Order: sequence, then structure tokens, then C-alpha cells
Amino acid sequence: MKNNNEMLALFENYLAQMQLPEEPQLLYQPIIYAMSAGGKRIRPTLLLLSCEAFGGDVRDAMSAAAAVEMFHNFTLLHDDIMDNALVRRGKPSVYAEWGENVAILSGDAMMIYAYKLLRNVPDEKLPRIMDIFSEMALQVCEGQQYDMDFEHLKKVAVAEYMNMIELKTSVLLAGSAMIGAVMGGASEEDCRKIYRYALELGLAFQLQDDLLDSYGAEKVLGKKIGGDILEGKKTCLMLNAMSRATEQDREVLRHTHLDTSLSAEQKIARVKEVYDRYDIPHIINQQITTRFERALTILSTLDIPAERTVYLKEFAQNLMGREK
Amino acid sequence: MKNNNEMLALFENYLAQMQLPEEPQLLYQPIIYAMSAGGKRIRPTLLLLSCEAFGGDVRDAMSAAAAVEMFHNFTLLHDDIMDNALVRRGKPSVYAEWGENVAILSGDAMMIYAYKLLRNVPDEKLPRIMDIFSEMALQVCEGQQYDMDFEHLKKVAVAEYMNMIELKTSVLLAGSAMIGAVMGGASEEDCRKIYRYALELGLAFQLQDDLLDSYGAEKVLGKKIGGDILEGKKTCLMLNAMSRATEQDREVLRHTHLDTSLSAEQKIARVKEVYDRYDIPHIINQQITTRFERALTILSTLDIPAERTVYLKEFAQNLMGREK
Repeated sequence: MKNNNEMLALFENYLAQMQLPEEPQLLYQPIIYAMSAGGKRIRPTLLLLSCEAFGGDVRDAMSAAAAVEMFHNFTLLHDDIMDNALVRRGKPSVYAEWGENVAILSGDAMMIYAYKLLRNVPDEKLPRIMDIFSEMALQVCEGQQYDMDFEHLKKVAVAEYMNMIELKTSVLLAGSAMIGAVMGGASEEDCRKIYRYALELGLAFQLQDDLLDSYGAEKVLGKKIGGDILEGKKTCLMLNAMSRATEQDREVLRHTHLDTSLSAEQKIARVKEVYDRYDIPHIINQQITTRFERALTILSTLDIPAERTVYLKEFAQNLMGREK
Repeated sequence: MKNNNEMLALFENYLAQMQLPEEPQLLYQPIIYAMSAGGKRIRPTLLLLSCEAFGGDVRDAMSAAAAVEMFHNFTLLHDDIMDNALVRRGKPSVYAEWGENVAILSGDAMMIYAYKLLRNVPDEKLPRIMDIFSEMALQVCEGQQYDMDFEHLKKVAVAEYMNMIELKTSVLLAGSAMIGAVMGGASEEDCRKIYRYALELGLAFQLQDDLLDSYGAEKVLGKKIGGDILEGKKTCLMLNAMSRATEQDREVLRHTHLDTSLSAEQKIARVKEVYDRYDIPHIINQQITTRFERALTILSTLDIPAERTVYLKEFAQNLMGREK
């Protein structure tokens, strides 16, 4: 069996050999640019680890792994247009480099190409894998729409936020894990379990992402903390705090980012003071740990020997930057 | 067997019963809006006629027919953003009604939904039909990119233009016809032939579209003629004229639409005078007739009784507004 790094290397090797058409250049060059810009290849790696855990041959699953990575990158291309984001992975986004029309159309071609790659799974597995893939892909769109909706809403419940991040980010991990399991010949029950494992892990990861944006170490993150606070973003910290705070503190949470009399540092400090008073970092940390441990527990209930789940456990730890 | 109108009615009935999710509203409402805005349902009708011509049960093919219609409407949503087009079928485009972000994301969801619909074909036919569909869908994107490329090019050859319209519009007709044939159990050879039939027909239709924009009867078209000339569009008339004209006449073709001293009527008259002098309407008309007749001839070579092709012949005549 291959560990996370070995699996990633195999996948990178497969991607590097993938041949896209050359013409029209403005359709395919942005795809090559986006796909070779790196990224952690989280979803294809999970798909392949899941496949191998259930005894599948990862060579048969490479194309499906490339499909989920292609799909993920397609969503980034279109998200960057919608968010007017000019930088992606430290380089100009496709939107910034080639403009909006190219980013729309190349993104469209990427999604079609994802299905084209998916088609290479064995015929008898295609219907099931297409079901999982299309369901997951639609949910990602739903999550993105809810995310955009929330920007314009005054009040978002914590449960609505959890549903949004589940759709927008976790189902893609969960679907990838499930496709890998189907490729590996897992039982229906194990497919559902591995889906749940990745869903919990994805939620833990997203909550941690929110937490680190306000409480992380800048050196480790490689970026300034407090960005979400300065944008007034409705993160899990903000929404949990809003649900617990007095009306007076809610006013602080709502308006601090708009207060032109304050410096960035002052804004961040003022909002974090409220978070701290309501113990929000601790509460979120507990939620993260609960979900992370739930994910690991699910692994132990799979109908395969424990030693086959060791790299799925490693995957979870790597993703969360945790030792145990 | 069902004629064109009966087939269209069956399809409309199927579409009307199709249930899309309700939430998030800003994702699914635009899809419902776009799909119920009418249109001629050319592609699904052709798919179903092709299926029945080869002896298939059209009820099994309804979902695939809805898939090609959904895909076609997805391309319109995204094209309208790229072209900044505010009106579609006499109503505000999704882009105009809901804005760019909604049009991007709803379009994305439509494409995924098209694959979800396609998935409902019988399992044993799914791999083949997915191949046809994805190939066709990628080619449509390529055609759209070439079309955008051409706007910025000084010189476009007639052959390049023909390749572009083949990709942008004809392959979607051709792929639809071929999917119908596969659903109907046609032989590989007949699948290729029906593809060719629809491809020729699509090209004839697109050439006629260009011709009518400058030479049609306004009453019949329901719009003013000369729009392409006023935009300086590189149509088949323009490119054929450019390839035949003297340098002096080429200057007229290139610059008349930019000449602010002329009225719209004068611009149209001046360009058409050049077209007429080089016999362009007649040349294009011949090309249309050649392709149209080639399409009908292909029908007569199919390995099915002649009476089974009668509605495919009717389809071609309806599309072109011709009696024979």
C-alpha cells in the first residue's frame, strides 16, 4: 500500500502525462495553466487512498481522480470570477490573466473534460460513479449559491452556515472518497461510511480554516490573520458569537469592520475580544475535535482490516495538521 | 411513428413534468426560467425522431433529449454573458434579469444537470452516449472560442469560418441525432451516417441564417435585416466576398460599418451592392442547397426502410423552411 506522499506522486505523474488538445489556445491554455498551478491535490489523493484501502488497483482509478481534481479547479475558475479574485495560489488567476470570457468558457470546458475523464472508469461502474459525481457537483453549486446568498442576509443561523460549508466544500471530499471506494469494490455500507468519514473531516477542516484565519500563527499560515474579521465575513466564529452575544456585543460584531475610525489591528482586536469573552475559540476547537475524532472512529468500523485504513488515518491527520 | 409536431408535443409534456429542486432559489429559478422560455426544441426533437426512425421507444430517450436541450440552454446562458446580451427569445436574458454571477452558476448547474439527465439512459448504452455527449459538448466550447477569436482577427478564411460554425452549432445537432440513433439501436455505420446528415443540415441552416440576415424578408424574419452588416460581422457572406473582391472592394467591406457619414440604410445598401456584384447570395444559396440535398441523400442510404425516414426528411424541410 502507498502512503499519502507516494499516492500524491503517482497522481502528479499521471497528470503530467495527460494530453489536452492544443487548439483553440485560449480555451485549453488556461486549463493547463490552472491544472499545473499546484494545489494540494487533496481530493484525488483521498480518492486513490480510498480505492486502495478497499483493495482496488489505483491505476484504474487515476482517471476518476483526475476528474475530481479537474472539477475542483473548474469551480475555482468560476468562483474567482464571481469573487473578483485576481490571485490564486500566488499567481494571477485565470480570470486576471485572460479575462472573464476566457475564464467562463475554459471553466465550462474543464467541467465537460471532468466528465470525459470520469467516463474512463470500467463500464459496469460508470452509472454508479456518475450518480455520485453529478450529485456532488450539483451540491457544490448549491453551496456556492448559499454562500453568495449569505453575503446579503442580515441573519444567518449557525446550522445554515454548517449546511453551506458541507455543500460547498465537504461533499466534494466525501464524493471523492466514495468514488474511490466504489472503484475499490467496497460494499454499499462501507461506501456510505467512507462518505461520512470524509464529510466530517471536510467540516472539521473548514471550521479549522475559519478559526485559524483569526487565531492562527501568521508564520505557519503564511498570511496575515484577521482577514475574515476585516471583511466582516460570516464565519463560524462570527455566527456562533452572534448567537450567544448580548445585543450590545452583537452591534460590535456587526459594525466594527465598517468603523473607519479604527485601524485594522484595532478592528481585529475588538472583534476577538468579543469572541474571547464568549469562549468562541474554545467552542469551535471542541467542534473541530469532535468531528475529527468522529471521522477516525468511522474508519475503525469499516469492514476491512485495520491496517488497510492506516493511510486514510494519515490523510486525516495531514489535512488537519494534527499528530493524532 | 410520430411526426415532428407530435414529437415536439411529447417532449414539451416531458419537460413540463420535470421537477427541479426548489432551493437555493437563485440557482434553480433561472434554470426553470430559461428552460420554459420556449425555443424550437430542435435538438431534442431530432434526437427523438432519430431514435424512433431506428425503431427505438422514445419514452426511453426522453431524458437524453432533455439533456441535450438543457445543455443547449446552458450554452445560451453563458454566451449571453460573454456577448453582453440582454434579451433572449423576446424576454430579458438570465444575465440581464439576475446578473452575471447567477448566470454563471446557474449555467454550471444546468450543465451538470444535463449529465444527470443523460445518466438515465439504459446502463449498457451509457458509456457510448457519454462519449458522444462529452465530445460534442467540448466541440461546442471550441466553436464558441473560435467565434470569439475571430472577432479580433483581421483575416479569417472561409474554411476557418465553416469549421467554427460546424463546431459551434452543427455538432450539437449531429450529436443529438447520433444519441437518438444509439438509443434506437442503430448500427455503427448508421450512427455515423445520421451524424453526417445532421451536420450537413446544421451547416445549411447556419449559412441560411447568415444569408437571411442580409437578404431575408423582414416580415418573415420578424426582425430588421442588415444587423450583421451594421456590426461588421464576419459572416459567410462577408468572408466569401472578401476572398473574391478586389482590394478596393475589400476596403468597402471592411470599413463601411464604421463610416459615421452614412445612415444604417446606406451602409447596408453599400455592402450588399458589393455582395451582389460578386454574386455572393447566389453562391451561398448554392452551398445551402448542396448541403441540404446531401443531408437528404444520406437519409436514403440508411439501412432502414425508406418510410422510416419520412419524419427526418420533414425535420430537415421544417428547419430550412423548405417544401422539398
